[in-house]
Amino acid sequence: MTYSEKLTAIRQQMKADGVAAYIIPSADPHISEYLPDHYKCIAFTTGFKGSVSTVVITQDFAGLWADFRYFEQAEEQLKGSGFELVKLKVQASPEYIQWLGETLPNGATIAFDEKLVSILLGELFHKELAYKQINFQHKDYLSPIWENRPALPTNPAFLIADEFIGQSVSAKLTAVRQALKQQHAAYHLISSLDDLAWLFNIRGADVSYNPVVLSFALISESQATLYIQHNKLSASDVASLAQSGVEILAYDNIANDLLFLPAESSILIDPKRNCFALYKLIPASVQRILETNPSTHLKAVKNETEVANTRKAMIKDGVAITQFLKWIKDTIGKIEITELSAAAQLKAFRAKQDGFMGESFNTIAGYKAHGALPHYAASKESDVAIKTESLFLVDSGGQYRYGTTDITRMIPMGDNTEEEKIDYTLVLKAMIEGSKTRFPKGTCGYQIDAITRRPMWDYALNYGHGTGHGVGYFLNVHEGPQVFNATATPVAVELGMITSIEPGIYRSGKHGIRIENLVLTIADQANEFNEFYAFEALTLAPIDTTLVKKELLEKVHIDWLNTYHANVYAKLSPYLNEDEKVFLGKMTSEV
Amino acid sequence: MTYSEKLTAIRQQMKADGVAAYIIPSADPHISEYLPDHYKCIAFTTGFKGSVSTVVITQDFAGLWADFRYFEQAEEQLKGSGFELVKLKVQASPEYIQWLGETLPNGATIAFDEKLVSILLGELFHKELAYKQINFQHKDYLSPIWENRPALPTNPAFLIADEFIGQSVSAKLTAVRQALKQQHAAYHLISSLDDLAWLFNIRGADVSYNPVVLSFALISESQATLYIQHNKLSASDVASLAQSGVEILAYDNIANDLLFLPAESSILIDPKRNCFALYKLIPASVQRILETNPSTHLKAVKNETEVANTRKAMIKDGVAITQFLKWIKDTIGKIEITELSAAAQLKAFRAKQDGFMGESFNTIAGYKAHGALPHYAASKESDVAIKTESLFLVDSGGQYRYGTTDITRMIPMGDNTEEEKIDYTLVLKAMIEGSKTRFPKGTCGYQIDAITRRPMWDYALNYGHGTGHGVGYFLNVHEGPQVFNATATPVAVELGMITSIEPGIYRSGKHGIRIENLVLTIADQANEFNEFYAFEALTLAPIDTTLVKKELLEKVHIDWLNTYHANVYAKLSPYLNEDEKVFLGKMTSEV
Repeated sequence: MTYSEKLTAIRQQMKADGVAAYIIPSADPHISEYLPDHYKCIAFTTGFKGSVSTVVITQDFAGLWADFRYFEQAEEQLKGSGFELVKLKVQASPEYIQWLGETLPNGATIAFDEKLVSILLGELFHKELAYKQINFQHKDYLSPIWENRPALPTNPAFLIADEFIGQSVSAKLTAVRQALKQQHAAYHLISSLDDLAWLFNIRGADVSYNPVVLSFALISESQATLYIQHNKLSASDVASLAQSGVEILAYDNIANDLLFLPAESSILIDPKRNCFALYKLIPASVQRILETNPSTHLKAVKNETEVANTRKAMIKDGVAITQFLKWIKDTIGKIEITELSAAAQLKAFRAKQDGFMGESFNTIAGYKAHGALPHYAASKESDVAIKTESLFLVDSGGQYRYGTTDITRMIPMGDNTEEEKIDYTLVLKAMIEGSKTRFPKGTCGYQIDAITRRPMWDYALNYGHGTGHGVGYFLNVHEGPQVFNATATPVAVELGMITSIEPGIYRSGKHGIRIENLVLTIADQANEFNEFYAFEALTLAPIDTTLVKKELLEKVHIDWLNTYHANVYAKLSPYLNEDEKVFLGKMTSEV
Repeated sequence: MTYSEKLTAIRQQMKADGVAAYIIPSADPHISEYLPDHYKCIAFTTGFKGSVSTVVITQDFAGLWADFRYFEQAEEQLKGSGFELVKLKVQASPEYIQWLGETLPNGATIAFDEKLVSILLGELFHKELAYKQINFQHKDYLSPIWENRPALPTNPAFLIADEFIGQSVSAKLTAVRQALKQQHAAYHLISSLDDLAWLFNIRGADVSYNPVVLSFALISESQATLYIQHNKLSASDVASLAQSGVEILAYDNIANDLLFLPAESSILIDPKRNCFALYKLIPASVQRILETNPSTHLKAVKNETEVANTRKAMIKDGVAITQFLKWIKDTIGKIEITELSAAAQLKAFRAKQDGFMGESFNTIAGYKAHGALPHYAASKESDVAIKTESLFLVDSGGQYRYGTTDITRMIPMGDNTEEEKIDYTLVLKAMIEGSKTRFPKGTCGYQIDAITRRPMWDYALNYGHGTGHGVGYFLNVHEGPQVFNATATPVAVELGMITSIEPGIYRSGKHGIRIENLVLTIADQANEFNEFYAFEALTLAPIDTTLVKKELLEKVHIDWLNTYHANVYAKLSPYLNEDEKVFLGKMTSEV
């Protein structure tokens, strides 16, 4: 079936059902960022392979709403499909809702697969379109026309080793139950895969890059049920979970158990991280407490074992990065290096490290103007050779059995312009400004974001993405609840949280610069004014200093950089050979 | 009737009605900050005169929940009343709700006067106590026992002169109606007095310091009705409003008109700024659109006339402040100056200025340790003489016919300690840091707040209040929607907004330091990254430089200070006599 044939089939069914508009979101029943193939509905329907977009189909129009990151790719991939690109003004904003309100007649019917829409989004549809008296229906128009639809993944899952955990499943369940008690909730549904992986100490390989396992959980004071596909867990892991008071039921059973929740009870359910379909199964008499999953916060605050292990992972990762940087310097001009071959080489260096389980996301290796696309992923079509000029941006990360990494470094390839040097120095200044900040307990990510950007604002520069995201522990490289960006997210930056700091400058058609470390929130001094916190730079890898214009930095920035580099050398050099030590010594010498 | 007799009477009535708890909030049906005497319910019931608190009465306990600003005052004023002070952990937080949840049995009844509770607070009661199946009832237990309760104020109101307005009532109504259309609202209820004063270009004297008029309004596409007490407006003002399409009805008529809103229509109503009693009158079939009043945003963005006039008011105010500072210097040691006499003298200087209508709030004149109480108001009991040592903090403001001012200056009285000098310099540094910030369009107050605080955080210092608040135009000295503080308030700082920047350091028992200017958001450069904005310092008055430790400042701060002072001298000196000019010249000389 071609894309336009699929579109015709969907429209016929819409007509038969009296449906005026059909929405296809980019999600799964766990409201995941990375999707199993089974849920790659937009790629199936339109041919567009980008990771975030929304499709809306009416009889007169079929549109794909995507943000600036995907404009070129979408134009290319949608050709001849019958779908048109609609350019989002604001990233991740559901602008199609307003379009639907303006386009549809009063009282029209909109349909979508309720498994693929979060509670929050489902409620938003109702709220924003109330003035048009729109009806909403659940419809899955794709399954009937999807021949050989990929099955749900059946990859095995495993309990992570005791030495790497730091907190037992029983202890985690106790913590979650305390939170439920405080919120006066009798039950708690969890659909989000990273919360589930953390709570049950399980890991797997059901989606790319995120070591998670398709599952659900229902928790109460007395019971904890994990809904997971049969045979995913070994018998010994099942026994171990049973000892922690966890019952295992089949993945699909969650629907039935929600439907038969006791009348007049209450359930805590995270509106951002559960699908509308499950939400609607909850009996009307059950009080819904719409709050963030307690595990989201508990997971973000790393325990001592997790911190100690992450520090070890950072050494492994820093060694691989150092070897990679040296390889580029040694090899450039001798053999052809391209964006893709460089990324492959970096993966090979990481793969030599103990405990490496895979990459934590698709490496962004962007040379020259490609670096100016913050989410660029090199493909066979776009791949270019790295030459001895301009800048090469490499943003990459690894999953280790005992930690997750995410690092961006710039590699100056030679003949750098004055503008490149100024931009590089100001990005570094911003990264250091954020990293060196002391801040009172209670400070939220938006405050760290502002402090990081200020040195750039002084020069009327800015970047269109957030300053940083939470990072999991051998788990998702993007995790909440904390985030360093300009949005009003009232989540405090707490002791033990791991977050990235990654400011950038992007000059379209020229170059992109980003420098990224992961930082751990640690205690600083306490006094009559407050407890103050600070950041420890967890990431251990040299930051190129050849482009640094010292006159744009203050003494505090130079001091920070020299101290950081001394630490990088001290921590990594024991794991390097003599040549590598010499290389790292040069890279980390004082400025 | 003594306070304990009142308490007994209330408890008897509660018993008779089966009411387990009675809540008395500090509010009026307009959810105002300053209350007419008619609504000073907490002072009537308990004797506590502080401006913000909540009283909760059960058969076993009668408590007054107040924050740290009022601890001493409340302990004193509640003596023998039967009411106990409950100390709030977090300022303005409704902590009594949790206490009610823990104290009352399942299914108990809570009562309160629904005129005195915002929609937001009323909904919060329901949400937070749902788990206890609490019933809520409207009860006014005070009126029956309140002999000679003060009547609602009958002060005259007036339309402000055309030359001072910049936008006609018709034009303002058109702007509000556009917003209603965008939000798909057929009707719009306004209860907040500053919104009403702005929309109808009316001013009055119904409460202290805020030149507002008790009123309501109901707006639709075709009608605009102002509900206001009979005879408050002159016949010519009524005629003028009629010409703008405004109908006048009696203040009390609002209830009836809400009750008879057309079925199936819709109403935009601000949940923070309307009372629960009116909200409940809206017929069930009318769709409630709970959003901020459109006028709140429109009002905050000052038009050219308002900006030009505010600049004039700033000159008047700066002249008065300069005369006051000179008076202190000339007079100290010759006659006794106290906090109260200084405040009176400052008012006298302001009163000599053209267009002065009164103070914009109760002057905070705090000497030495009194300065460490951010909301200190000198009383006959607390008043102290100013001596030739330590610091004198004066935070004051004026209402002029063409603008509102708010300024804090520190007066070093002599023999200042090293700690006072360091603290003073760091407060000044923070104030300048905020004032000199360039920021991209879309930046919110919490970002400006973080940037202002950062220089203090570097020294592990902080302050427990916000960095700044919006300021009205011959209107409330505190107005929204923008605010510079750490809370996640997603309101952008827009061109034409006037906001204060007022960081501080408070050392209990020693001294308090705060320096405050009002700033106007103005356009800066625009480029490929964004439009950038900056602040113009509107306040024109010298900032004492004798305590400044230059080594704690960077060159940018010193440059800002010298440029600011040159401007202050240029703007104010034409209005000063020779002696005053010499004085100001010294105060504003370069550091």
